Amino acid sequence: MPITLKTTDPDFDRRFADILVMKREDSTDVNDAVARIIADTRKRGDLALCELTARFDRLELTPDSLRFGPEEIAAQIAKVSDEDRAALSMAAERIRAYHARQMPENAEWTDPEGATLGWRWSPVSAAGLYVPGGQATYPSSVLMNAVPARVAGVRRLVMCVPAPDGVINPLVLLAAELAGVDEIYRVGGAQAVAAMAYGTDTIAPVDKITGPGNAYVAAAKRQVFGRVGIDMIAGPSEVLIIAEGGQNPDWIALDLLAQAEHDADAQSILITTDPALADAVAGAVDRLLPSLPRAEIAGASWRDYGTIIIARDLDEAAALSDRVAPEHLELLVDDPEALAGKCTHAGAIFLGAFTPEAVGDYVSGPNHVLPTARSARFSSGLSVMDFLKRTTIARLSPGALAQIGPAAVRLAASEGLQAHGQSVQARLDQLNEGQGS
Amino acid sequence: MPITLKTTDPDFDRRFADILVMKREDSTDVNDAVARIIADTRKRGDLALCELTARFDRLELTPDSLRFGPEEIAAQIAKVSDEDRAALSMAAERIRAYHARQMPENAEWTDPEGATLGWRWSPVSAAGLYVPGGQATYPSSVLMNAVPARVAGVRRLVMCVPAPDGVINPLVLLAAELAGVDEIYRVGGAQAVAAMAYGTDTIAPVDKITGPGNAYVAAAKRQVFGRVGIDMIAGPSEVLIIAEGGQNPDWIALDLLAQAEHDADAQSILITTDPALADAVAGAVDRLLPSLPRAEIAGASWRDYGTIIIARDLDEAAALSDRVAPEHLELLVDDPEALAGKCTHAGAIFLGAFTPEAVGDYVSGPNHVLPTARSARFSSGLSVMDFLKRTTIARLSPGALAQIGPAAVRLAASEGLQAHGQSVQARLDQLNEGQGS
Repeated sequence: MPITLKTTDPDFDRRFADILVMKREDSTDVNDAVARIIADTRKRGDLALCELTARFDRLELTPDSLRFGPEEIAAQIAKVSDEDRAALSMAAERIRAYHARQMPENAEWTDPEGATLGWRWSPVSAAGLYVPGGQATYPSSVLMNAVPARVAGVRRLVMCVPAPDGVINPLVLLAAELAGVDEIYRVGGAQAVAAMAYGTDTIAPVDKITGPGNAYVAAAKRQVFGRVGIDMIAGPSEVLIIAEGGQNPDWIALDLLAQAEHDADAQSILITTDPALADAVAGAVDRLLPSLPRAEIAGASWRDYGTIIIARDLDEAAALSDRVAPEHLELLVDDPEALAGKCTHAGAIFLGAFTPEAVGDYVSGPNHVLPTARSARFSSGLSVMDFLKRTTIARLSPGALAQIGPAAVRLAASEGLQAHGQSVQARLDQLNEGQGS
Repeated sequence: MPITLKTTDPDFDRRFADILVMKREDSTDVNDAVARIIADTRKRGDLALCELTARFDRLELTPDSLRFGPEEIAAQIAKVSDEDRAALSMAAERIRAYHARQMPENAEWTDPEGATLGWRWSPVSAAGLYVPGGQATYPSSVLMNAVPARVAGVRRLVMCVPAPDGVINPLVLLAAELAGVDEIYRVGGAQAVAAMAYGTDTIAPVDKITGPGNAYVAAAKRQVFGRVGIDMIAGPSEVLIIAEGGQNPDWIALDLLAQAEHDADAQSILITTDPALADAVAGAVDRLLPSLPRAEIAGASWRDYGTIIIARDLDEAAALSDRVAPEHLELLVDDPEALAGKCTHAGAIFLGAFTPEAVGDYVSGPNHVLPTARSARFSSGLSVMDFLKRTTIARLSPGALAQIGPAAVRLAASEGLQAHGQSVQARLDQLNEGQGS
């Protein structure tokens, strides 16, 4: 049974606080094993990759066969049905169109003192995308990671995806092709992350690694962080739905179950102002759950982490949502725009009854890689910004240095950094001489 | 003696590669000690803060005296000279003006299919700024961290700064006032980071922690990451100067020394196309170094990590600079704009002879918190973006769902996520019924 709370319950605050600190993830400590794999990959390069792939993926490779060849990719992609190809192409185009709008502008201006200031954005030179193998191989995730990198202008885009027992999902290769991935390696796990971070004879190193993965991949990303950039370490997925009376309980139930079917650790929360809707949704979940192929996973998630909260009004619902800071927020209310204006901590907001979260997972355009575990309080979903960096620019005219340089000399002195002061003062002295002559 | 290389040397590539992987930082492993301090602070709150402050800072506090009171702040600030106040105010205003231009725009548009898409930026609710005590207490760093947070619209801005033996730098308090810090606590070390991340009775928790610190502070920031956001973990500072013949060797020497005086682990690199200038700069460093109050630190940095490279031409110099990806890049050449266009991996670029890096540390306006240790390949300096997060927005009209929903259903099926597909299909079914009737 999911938790059901009313905000008017005397113990609501305590019970809601318990939900906020609920730990949904079993993080097994694989740091030592991962450190050994990284060290081995750094030391022995391709040889380590081949040995580890034989051991973990039951696949015998040589350095020459680490990379998928063009014929092999074409042959796999040819297996994809026209319908799947059309759907994936539409998704790729919509994601591309959305992310193209995110490209930030360079700036440059000259201020009244004569200082020309600004910044310039530039892409990372090379990015590596990790794609899990096995059951969680999602072609949509390939698009969500690779398309923004391409839009950002990354010149070299690498993908590592394990092929356990030699099996690869053709849709993953098609997604890589649609997104413009340059090199695909059939390597997975911590060794793939290590290879992309440090390079081997076959895999040149990249500057940024993104993409989901299991505990080994997550630990490896943490360990190589600093050597390369990484995206966030994603936790179990979440949805919070705010619904008014009059909304379709079956649709809400399916949206809650769509989140729950991801993972037994996923969390689905409904906040409603209508107790009758709360009952109807709970009933609909029970009715719809058994027929799902992933009923066991979704059922465990709903049983252990599912939550229904009955709130006094929508303002209270919005305030509770902001405390959760959900990854996904659906607003199934008559005026979703007004309510969205009151919700500031969320990875993505889906407005209105015809925007189920699942369209956001695939085709609406915004990224589906979003902050989990309340981190929407301080972080954002994946975007072109993850593949760009900003270089600040300053050029002072002699006149500008004459006006603002003395303050720098003063502050350098107050911080005890004399060479800092002298480096400015030497220029000021020449300018003063010039004036005197 | 610094390393001197010519790109025409037969072993240049190998020796340059050695410089790129040179490790300049001794990272003592303080993780276990820090984990204990964090656990203690989470468990015992203010009491732990008081005990740890007595032990590490030789300062007896009670929960009531953890926070600086307004009279005490005013009394300290009154000690600051008018000249220092004016210099710090100018710095604050210039930093504010620069960062105000960084504020990103919200976006919203409706595409041909009828999907209204976009994103909204919002500030983190509360940010915490760590400020080191002791010799590395830099009021300029207070401004560089706190001003962007304020510009971003952070509602609550907290600062923790240790006061060893009860001593506090009045300029740090003035900088906090100028930047608009709301609460200042005389707590330092890992316990300050833990208090800001988890909260105590006196210090309410924040959502994002930024600011420099020693190994304990850096380890604490890493450990609380996830619970809160953090900025980068900064390594030793660096400058790379590209200079043509005809530039003033004393100015270059002072700029190299200004970097070197930060820290014995700092690194100063000169790349020049003029061997005579290389000799003149090396001589100027030797002549100017002994008179510096921080000659020992600067001398150690220059001796151990200082590097002079003689390049064939400016294109080669720019390519080498991009491989270093320096934190600070000075272009002392006749046409610095043209050269800047060829340098894409750098935290900040200073163009021309009248823009010494030291003005950027204080008053030019751009942030001085910049990516070190080659991380400018994939990351950016501190900005208002560090205190903002993006929420993506999607609202589909029934017509938009009818057009793009079927692709989502198809992709959900291909990924084996049936509830995803059903949540979309249930809406499509209703739309189809509506059309049929």
